[in-house]
Amino acid sequence: MRLGRHILAEFYNCSESVMNNVSFIESAMAEAARISGATVIGTNFHTFEPWGVSGVVVISESHLSIHTWPEYKYAAIDIFTCGDDVNPWVGFEYLKEVFAAEHTETQEISRGIVEKVKKYSHIEQVQLTHKPQGKIRV
Amino acid sequence: MRLGRHILAEFYNCSESVMNNVSFIESAMAEAARISGATVIGTNFHTFEPWGVSGVVVISESHLSIHTWPEYKYAAIDIFTCGDDVNPWVGFEYLKEVFAAEHTETQEISRGIVEKVKKYSHIEQVQLTHKPQGKIRV
Repeated sequence: MRLGRHILAEFYNCSESVMNNVSFIESAMAEAARISGATVIGTNFHTFEPWGVSGVVVISESHLSIHTWPEYKYAAIDIFTCGDDVNPWVGFEYLKEVFAAEHTETQEISRGIVEKVKKYSHIEQVQLTHKPQGKIRV
Repeated sequence: MRLGRHILAEFYNCSESVMNNVSFIESAMAEAARISGATVIGTNFHTFEPWGVSGVVVISESHLSIHTWPEYKYAAIDIFTCGDDVNPWVGFEYLKEVFAAEHTETQEISRGIVEKVKKYSHIEQVQLTHKPQGKIRV
């Protein structure tokens, strides 16, 4: 059991024009959050000179982020979620499609592993409080 | 060679009061970015009911993020940077001290590995363009 799931995704050979389109990327990242079941709190996106987009979607259940290198048709995308009501892989599949990624590589990292929280923070009982949703006793 | 370095850090047994202090955390995260050598573009921080802080510092060289569970004295922290002018470990050490983390676990993940970008995005020549700094030919 863990407090959060963190997907680190490498997107290769994406659409070069999309990778430099900040408004499209911001909309897509927010939509990926929503269809994953997350609640969007805010977004913060920027375009760099001469190219490239960086941005974050803050959600109630953690965050999504993206950094693009249009010149390499590459993007580094993170989807970090908490709670069983959110499925980050739904957002991943959506982004893979809309960014037209020919190849992707992913790893899912568990964040806040309950046994380690108990051990290292000296906590006897951990309840998985998935803000702002309900609680699951572990 | 890689476009970015991404530190995933687990902070255990931190100060409980600090883990719920959004203004302190926002200042500390921005300072961690600056002393790492990064340029802060913007911040986006929130406090949750009944507790917990989430926030992101967007930097020219990628981002820093934090999600805290004060009730477990735990925080999940990410420091994602690009470029040789930024050392994310300097920010990590600073945060470990100001959050009074008794125990931490980290992993550094390479993002945008150049050989894979060349292979999967069909790019012949990759220049490490560390926005907004200079270029390093690879």
